[in-house]
Amino acid sequence: MPDIRTFIEANKERFMEEYFALLRICSISPGNLHPDECRQAGELIHEYLNNAGCANTGLIETEHNPLVYGEMFISESLPTVLIYGHYDVMPAEIEDGWDTDPFEPVIHDGKVYARGAEDNKGQLFILLKTIEYLGLKKSLNCNIKCIIDGEEETGSPGLTEFLHRDTNLLKADIAVICDTDMLNAQTPAIVISTRGGIDWDIQVRGPVNDLHSGMYGGAIVNPVKELVRVIGSLYDKNGRVTLPGFYDDVREYSRNERENISEQSFDEEELRSIAGVEIPDGEIGYSSLERIAIRPTLEITGISGGYTGEGMKAIVPSLAKVKIFARMVPDQDIDSIYHSLEKYLKKELSDSVTFECRKLGSCPPYLCDTGSDYFRYMEDAAEEVFEKKPVKLREGGSIGILTEFKEKLSVDSILIGFGLKSDNIHGPNEHFAISNMWKGMETLDAFFRRF
Amino acid sequence: MPDIRTFIEANKERFMEEYFALLRICSISPGNLHPDECRQAGELIHEYLNNAGCANTGLIETEHNPLVYGEMFISESLPTVLIYGHYDVMPAEIEDGWDTDPFEPVIHDGKVYARGAEDNKGQLFILLKTIEYLGLKKSLNCNIKCIIDGEEETGSPGLTEFLHRDTNLLKADIAVICDTDMLNAQTPAIVISTRGGIDWDIQVRGPVNDLHSGMYGGAIVNPVKELVRVIGSLYDKNGRVTLPGFYDDVREYSRNERENISEQSFDEEELRSIAGVEIPDGEIGYSSLERIAIRPTLEITGISGGYTGEGMKAIVPSLAKVKIFARMVPDQDIDSIYHSLEKYLKKELSDSVTFECRKLGSCPPYLCDTGSDYFRYMEDAAEEVFEKKPVKLREGGSIGILTEFKEKLSVDSILIGFGLKSDNIHGPNEHFAISNMWKGMETLDAFFRRF
Repeated sequence: MPDIRTFIEANKERFMEEYFALLRICSISPGNLHPDECRQAGELIHEYLNNAGCANTGLIETEHNPLVYGEMFISESLPTVLIYGHYDVMPAEIEDGWDTDPFEPVIHDGKVYARGAEDNKGQLFILLKTIEYLGLKKSLNCNIKCIIDGEEETGSPGLTEFLHRDTNLLKADIAVICDTDMLNAQTPAIVISTRGGIDWDIQVRGPVNDLHSGMYGGAIVNPVKELVRVIGSLYDKNGRVTLPGFYDDVREYSRNERENISEQSFDEEELRSIAGVEIPDGEIGYSSLERIAIRPTLEITGISGGYTGEGMKAIVPSLAKVKIFARMVPDQDIDSIYHSLEKYLKKELSDSVTFECRKLGSCPPYLCDTGSDYFRYMEDAAEEVFEKKPVKLREGGSIGILTEFKEKLSVDSILIGFGLKSDNIHGPNEHFAISNMWKGMETLDAFFRRF
Repeated sequence: MPDIRTFIEANKERFMEEYFALLRICSISPGNLHPDECRQAGELIHEYLNNAGCANTGLIETEHNPLVYGEMFISESLPTVLIYGHYDVMPAEIEDGWDTDPFEPVIHDGKVYARGAEDNKGQLFILLKTIEYLGLKKSLNCNIKCIIDGEEETGSPGLTEFLHRDTNLLKADIAVICDTDMLNAQTPAIVISTRGGIDWDIQVRGPVNDLHSGMYGGAIVNPVKELVRVIGSLYDKNGRVTLPGFYDDVREYSRNERENISEQSFDEEELRSIAGVEIPDGEIGYSSLERIAIRPTLEITGISGGYTGEGMKAIVPSLAKVKIFARMVPDQDIDSIYHSLEKYLKKELSDSVTFECRKLGSCPPYLCDTGSDYFRYMEDAAEEVFEKKPVKLREGGSIGILTEFKEKLSVDSILIGFGLKSDNIHGPNEHFAISNMWKGMETLDAFFRRF
């Protein structure tokens, strides 16, 4: 059996074909509007697991998109590694600002452009193809279980439900997930904490129809005005959230701890350049890195109401909608924050409007055990490949399943990822450098060699 | 020559055909997206003026939609009545909540449903068909000039510009406009004041793309959050606008004057029922009528930003848009209020965002001279037809051209209208009662008989 670099060199073209076939499937999970495409992506993953030499492969049905399972069993006496990834992606339409069709991958300058190119079809592919190599090599010193999710982008309700009824199938000693970024193109990173997330989908209704603002303006409630007034009051000029109790349970760090966190050498310049803004912004008293790593945020992710086309309609609109998404940190309680905002709206909105508030998904914050042998294997593997110690990162994003694995399976997760901040996941022109895919496979091979 | 009722009876079917032909033309002016349809409507009005026996008819070109002119000249020694109406309409799409195509009129229960059925094609039709009758009758004791606008819904920029270069053609002693409502189906009304209007079309930009809220949320400015925070701070819980100086020049009325205003017997129950709300809303310390008649209002007419489709996108959006429309009363200065809000935004918005603020149109508030003979002619004419003295109304809406007529032509306007509050102009299912059209013609005939 050749080493993994030779294996990659010999199979590159086939890998790209298989990767592109997966990217072409519009497996958007938010909104549950693409159940057929999600199933199709799941079936393709199933095929890839079979081709990789996995046993007991199959689809596990959930209320919406199926999970995909496969395993390589060597011996009861060996530790088991649970591999997790997801085949579902965030919505994408060319109108959002894509230069090319988000579901027709193209290669440009060594990078693949498509929705999911990185998150998570690309990073998942690293895992799948490493397993294929390990299967062929027949030198595995551990057991492998793969569980591939179809609803990560909506908070993994199907897998969560599965873990409520079956904790046996996925029992393992450590989980490995590739869904995060490197520090930069040269420096590997392992994520040791993630922020949680929770959302509010809010509708406020005023008059039954849009009304003429001359005839009614001032005497009939304007639900857009009312929503803006109340949601606007959730923020102050110092970048702080004024929702009562929002910061109460946020873990505070000592000056020493904060200095350690800063060691992950955050590139302010890169942040500004990716965002295309001159001045970053956020909570007063914290660095940009701290704002992302250890501080919660309450973002308005979407708002609409009334008429915003060309010209002006002199109306009192009948309906306003807002979507809010909070990123939360240890030790905030997501449910109590959810109810706190709901209560605030109830109290502050005028009695002249009616409102509805729905939660679409949620996920608690996560902290990893950095003292285990497995964690050290991964640190050493990354150092072997990149000739640099991996940095320990605190991520601003959320991976919902981490807490579920911890609570239901008592298993810790190692988050090693090969994305870059500039890959623009969830946005237009998402992309992934092909070279990072090969480096990722080398790293995981080095990890498994250490067992 | 028969009287006007007999004339109407004999010509009803033709009138309906001509009215429907006008309603079928999608002559939307806001946004200037329908120049051909607007011109087509203008040409049809031109034809109708010719058929009515007007002389010197023709289209007057402007930057966008043409004006239409026609006259009936009797004698230099007689007073001249300027008739004003408009053929342009507000945007309408069936998706806005229409039960039928807004540009395919239908009759239901004695009412015509279509965009413009009332505002202003229906009310304009009253004027056009009365003129036709007066022309046939050959007993006019005044001269008539007709000027029909194609941009009333965008603040009449073309007519305003025309009045800057030519004040001779439209020189007159009094203007008559049918673009307002009756008090109710039994009680005629003459509008003696209108609110002015001014708008702000605002865009706030943050990051160059939508960004992942996990990776950037908290450290990069969210333009939607920022816009909502600052616009939200323009309102307090008492329904008052907190923009500095907003109420400074608002004319205050004595208790006695306020009691007189209340005599227009405003129907709170009807207001609630039309708006479909249980509790009307507005500035504390004023009645619903006062809120519409003598108090200014600052309405958010539209807002958008980020993702508001199904599901949730965990993003920091890149762009937020808001449209704001103020209704203003004597003696507020529209320009100083415009700049005051622009200045407020500049001061309050974070330096991390960029913003643009555009004015699409504006129109000062108006007060009518109720002491003239012409005003008395109209009061008496309405009383003759409806057997009830017309009520003097203070309208919440704006008719931009009133101030132009006053300033450029030194001519006062009499606003007699035959619409009803429930006609839902500017909204879906706009309609106009056919019987009101005939009553309107009788009233105008009675007005002209008094010369």
